[in-house]
Amino acid sequence: MGQNLIFTNDVEEAIERLQAKLAPNMTMYIADVNTARFVLGQERLIIIPDGDTGKSLTSVCHVWDTMERLGATRRSLVINLGGGMVTDLGGFAAATFKRGVRFINVPTTLLGAVDAAVGGKTGFNYNGLKNEIGAFAPACDVIISTRYFDTLPVKEMKSGFAEVLKHAMLSDRDEFLRLIDHDFNTPINHDDLLERLRRSVQVKVDIVARDPNEQGERKALNLGHTIGHAFESLAMKRGKPVPHGYAVAWGLVTEAVLSHLLLKFPSEDVHLLGNFVRDNYRDFPFTCDDYDELLELMRHDKKSRDGEITCTLLAAIGNYRIDQTVTPDDVTAALDILRDHLGI
Amino acid sequence: MGQNLIFTNDVEEAIERLQAKLAPNMTMYIADVNTARFVLGQERLIIIPDGDTGKSLTSVCHVWDTMERLGATRRSLVINLGGGMVTDLGGFAAATFKRGVRFINVPTTLLGAVDAAVGGKTGFNYNGLKNEIGAFAPACDVIISTRYFDTLPVKEMKSGFAEVLKHAMLSDRDEFLRLIDHDFNTPINHDDLLERLRRSVQVKVDIVARDPNEQGERKALNLGHTIGHAFESLAMKRGKPVPHGYAVAWGLVTEAVLSHLLLKFPSEDVHLLGNFVRDNYRDFPFTCDDYDELLELMRHDKKSRDGEITCTLLAAIGNYRIDQTVTPDDVTAALDILRDHLGI
Repeated sequence: MGQNLIFTNDVEEAIERLQAKLAPNMTMYIADVNTARFVLGQERLIIIPDGDTGKSLTSVCHVWDTMERLGATRRSLVINLGGGMVTDLGGFAAATFKRGVRFINVPTTLLGAVDAAVGGKTGFNYNGLKNEIGAFAPACDVIISTRYFDTLPVKEMKSGFAEVLKHAMLSDRDEFLRLIDHDFNTPINHDDLLERLRRSVQVKVDIVARDPNEQGERKALNLGHTIGHAFESLAMKRGKPVPHGYAVAWGLVTEAVLSHLLLKFPSEDVHLLGNFVRDNYRDFPFTCDDYDELLELMRHDKKSRDGEITCTLLAAIGNYRIDQTVTPDDVTAALDILRDHLGI
Repeated sequence: MGQNLIFTNDVEEAIERLQAKLAPNMTMYIADVNTARFVLGQERLIIIPDGDTGKSLTSVCHVWDTMERLGATRRSLVINLGGGMVTDLGGFAAATFKRGVRFINVPTTLLGAVDAAVGGKTGFNYNGLKNEIGAFAPACDVIISTRYFDTLPVKEMKSGFAEVLKHAMLSDRDEFLRLIDHDFNTPINHDDLLERLRRSVQVKVDIVARDPNEQGERKALNLGHTIGHAFESLAMKRGKPVPHGYAVAWGLVTEAVLSHLLLKFPSEDVHLLGNFVRDNYRDFPFTCDDYDELLELMRHDKKSRDGEITCTLLAAIGNYRIDQTVTPDDVTAALDILRDHLGI
């Protein structure tokens, strides 16, 4: 991928150093209406709407038009400063302008830092479908910091943390144990969190490096997501969206149960995970009456085939198996156990 | 690039073989209003407008929408059947749909076969600028044939032939001598032309393989184009467009003269080239009154820097030098000599 990662809380210094290295003829910032405040005063600032509805072709055209007006060329540089929406959309716009302008990602959310900003997936929503149009286009550099997190709502922190947890489950039980000890009620320890990020992002980077275009192994990163996406989609459909990471946290527990049923994943770890999710991601909005609709959504997941439900499962923490087919009965049993864990 | 080239006039057989190899869950054709007749009867056919005005975001959206409606997934296959416009735009639409659907290019023009269909450049016109938005995305396979050429106007054949000539000038004097013996008034010898195409395309493929994203050596393929583009743009601006290859042919002569002046490119080869271009690409529409405007356009070429005029030049046939700066005086002298060659 050639994607250079920089872990630092001195973002300005890192940007200065990168500009000296990349020697662009012009630098532009892309931010959304919330993150623009971090770079106000920049001469060339492209502001896009926030949220999922702003992740549109209209916003992409706005970026292209503004780049054109600013006189951007292939030797220019784009700095995407924001959450996953900004790095996804800004990355796509930059990667396609004159067939590719270099871009740097500066994620401002935990979810962005640990997931969207790294790994080269860019895109936007189209015809009501999430990330329907896009490209695999890596940022040349990603600056990962925790300095924007102090003002993040705790719900946002928890949402990102679920992906941190996922990466630990794919790689390292000690890190997993360290993470489930986390207390969201104490102020952020920036040094410690930056170290957690460093380890977490490395897991993703290593997997992506072996399979940049998602032909096989990259599906490991889908852990918790086949089922998590079904929760997310159904909640969205009912007009009561849940944060992505909450859906992933519930998906991780459900898929850990499936892993136990099908691959003898240790029940001790199912319980440790289940307790952490119960304590921090409680507001599960579904009952057994929703199972049929959830199963239907799983069958239509982007990564499923021929109407079968396919997950990434674990034989143990750090030992993942992609392309595991599960039956509706297995999933139903696992959803019951999830609800037990959550105490509902 | 991983771009597989197939030279054959049995296109149907090649497509059947590729479908067996790629095993898509669905195949769609993209063609323009002219080339659709070659695939009428196909179940899934997406037709776009022809010509440069049809190479628009509107056409891209039409392709995305239709792919959506047809139920295309990441395991589907797109076959682009047409000239450079269809392979450029269809390639971009396929490469960005769900972050990448595989596509095969079947160029139907000589220019498309020898240039646009191969090498991974895709894109569309935006805000009045040619190929302003795009991506480097190689077709998985390119089927190169001469079977669609019998009905091509001779002007179109000549236009494509200029790029064939360019490839020979970058690589092989014997091939160059063979080409300038070509007579456009005799019927196409398909076997011989397919062999010329095989050699010509290989030159491009070898250069692109060494520099897929146009960081350096790929600029060799720009031979004849810094000056050629100026001719093309000025003619377009005046509402009297010239075929791309005609502009390239005049650009090749002008840059051969510059190569002689600056790099001692043999005058014998300047004359051989000049005579061939005089005999076949006569209608040069400019006089010395246009030099200032042409020089201004050269200064703004995508590949020029800081207002300097940069060309790829030749020390000899097969011995190219990228990033050669030329002065306005050099260019003026070379344009005079071009006009001498053309006898105007």
